Amino acid sequence: MIQNLAIASDHAGYNLKTFLINQLDSDLNIKDFGTDNENSCDFPDFAQELCNFINENNSSYRGILICGSGVGMSIAANKIKGIRAANVVDELTAIQSVEHNNVNILCLGSNNVSNENALSIVLKFLNTYMLDEERYIRRVGKLEN
Amino acid sequence: MIQNLAIASDHAGYNLKTFLINQLDSDLNIKDFGTDNENSCDFPDFAQELCNFINENNSSYRGILICGSGVGMSIAANKIKGIRAANVVDELTAIQSVEHNNVNILCLGSNNVSNENALSIVLKFLNTYMLDEERYIRRVGKLEN
Repeated sequence: MIQNLAIASDHAGYNLKTFLINQLDSDLNIKDFGTDNENSCDFPDFAQELCNFINENNSSYRGILICGSGVGMSIAANKIKGIRAANVVDELTAIQSVEHNNVNILCLGSNNVSNENALSIVLKFLNTYMLDEERYIRRVGKLEN
Repeated sequence: MIQNLAIASDHAGYNLKTFLINQLDSDLNIKDFGTDNENSCDFPDFAQELCNFINENNSSYRGILICGSGVGMSIAANKIKGIRAANVVDELTAIQSVEHNNVNILCLGSNNVSNENALSIVLKFLNTYMLDEERYIRRVGKLEN
């Protein structure tokens, strides 16, 4: 399992972020990029800081970004070269997003997943690696062109 | 409602794309960017062609991209400047993705939504416009920086 996790959220994702950190803190090395309260803030600021860190530590860290729907965070993250972010609401899609698309950032919508569901999705995400199949490698390679 | 729709899929999304075109063809001007069969193909090729078209016709067209999970298409689309793509499985998130994030491309996973559910999501997507609120406009503006 991936041992190093970077996590960030906006105000709408703050409570889910806190829950996940409390659940995972004893098992993982977690780097928290904020936000640190429920005051309104701009999700792209947090996405950018976390994604830059993931790019600098790409082989050892994966990231989680949380907002209300997961949509804004996934757009912001995917705008950054080297980032492949998936907004998912179920375990199977989380697994396939890594196996097929080599996703390095999981986006969650706090309005779309319960805390317990989110934790299950995160554990699948961290326990999955890309499949070594030529078609998947070729398609992921095309994402940066 | 948006009257002009561009649509594309990979092999996994071909049947859902065909269903949506048949359901919507009498009410909308639809431009189909393929794929045209269920033979294996690379989703980034189709995402790129459709997104370039959306950028050239941004005020009058929206786009739909379909693959198995919606994840690959949403990554590929968001890599392109000017595109804001959301992978969603429910109507409410489709609405919010436009109202809050000015999403211009809807991504669907043929494994995650039924045909009828997909049609409902598409109709909400095409009937929704961005909210004129300063915080949303500011955050969307930050996505391209």
